[in-house]
Amino acid sequence: MINKKILEMIKKYLEMYKTIETKQVEGTSEFLKVVRQEYRLGMGETIIRDHIVKPNLTGSAVVVLPITKEGKFVLVIQPRVLTKNGALVEVPAGYIEPGEDPFQAALRELEEETGYRGSELVLIKDYYQDQGCMQAFNHAFIAWDCEKRTDQHLDFDEHIQYFEATYEEVLELVEMGYIIDANSLLTIEFAKPYVTGKTHEISNNKKIF
Amino acid sequence: MINKKILEMIKKYLEMYKTIETKQVEGTSEFLKVVRQEYRLGMGETIIRDHIVKPNLTGSAVVVLPITKEGKFVLVIQPRVLTKNGALVEVPAGYIEPGEDPFQAALRELEEETGYRGSELVLIKDYYQDQGCMQAFNHAFIAWDCEKRTDQHLDFDEHIQYFEATYEEVLELVEMGYIIDANSLLTIEFAKPYVTGKTHEISNNKKIF
Repeated sequence: MINKKILEMIKKYLEMYKTIETKQVEGTSEFLKVVRQEYRLGMGETIIRDHIVKPNLTGSAVVVLPITKEGKFVLVIQPRVLTKNGALVEVPAGYIEPGEDPFQAALRELEEETGYRGSELVLIKDYYQDQGCMQAFNHAFIAWDCEKRTDQHLDFDEHIQYFEATYEEVLELVEMGYIIDANSLLTIEFAKPYVTGKTHEISNNKKIF
Repeated sequence: MINKKILEMIKKYLEMYKTIETKQVEGTSEFLKVVRQEYRLGMGETIIRDHIVKPNLTGSAVVVLPITKEGKFVLVIQPRVLTKNGALVEVPAGYIEPGEDPFQAALRELEEETGYRGSELVLIKDYYQDQGCMQAFNHAFIAWDCEKRTDQHLDFDEHIQYFEATYEEVLELVEMGYIIDANSLLTIEFAKPYVTGKTHEISNNKKIF
């Protein structure tokens, strides 16, 4: 059973972060653009497709499951205005910035969102997030031996609450529907053989800091 | 080991469907729009966020893992111009149309893309596909006892090749990186306890046809 205090804390932040009023505003998005292109296929035919361009162009993101020296998992709660509940519990994640490799992005995003830093990053899975409308090719990591090192570094309108949970609590939060986004679910799923000790990391998928 | 003929067939279609030339074209997208809204949060603060609106507004999709009476799995190959290889092997999927419930959409999409129809649809998982920039709340299904009933019903510029594979071959295609998108991977992962007989379906998540 999930710790009662953790569940109360989660509910408190979900309440704080949820949307209570929405209104349309004018203005062009600097964040999301739609691009139209024509593609000639190997079979000769030409098709037209629209796709979304994000701030880092491709929209590729890293997802980082941080595990502390004590074997706890670090999760985040944040406003998600596009969801029914208005806020979600997630695995830390963020966009790869231009010039970064996925490992650098993973290290930076983890530290910005939580102030934690791991001593070893293991790439556990790459996948397309939404291949029908964007190029985003995401990378899921485990960060081992994490420790709280610094404060969070958040943008002015970014709100992220982090907390530690046991592995059983992480699985329970999935089961209960608190963790319910594709990035977090896939990362937790593909981390399973590593967490349960069934898989040993392949050396070229790993970086030590 | 995966059947050689299946692998050759997959490679042939990936080659046919891949992009060999790309060019920018003019025109406004009817398919993807960006909307800007202001949100007041429970904690009092107001934030502005942009999001993507798809043809069915939310962009919610269904993903359907079809299993035949003989225990084979039906997969699709299609052009995916936004990916590195230009084409992917996937679990059948598509957008929920206005007025449809997820079960209706699953039945329709499966039939359109493959011509197969199942006698029982089981909803195995709901999840947000990309909660930072769209509302899409997807639904993953297993369609049991599928049979080939009709021809495919494809749009004029849609190309989809379907094929049957064993469960071991499906897992191998994941392992080999041929199946590499979030929707297909999540559906195959969450189907595992059902396919291996460890989970019995909950009756209100199931519809029989």
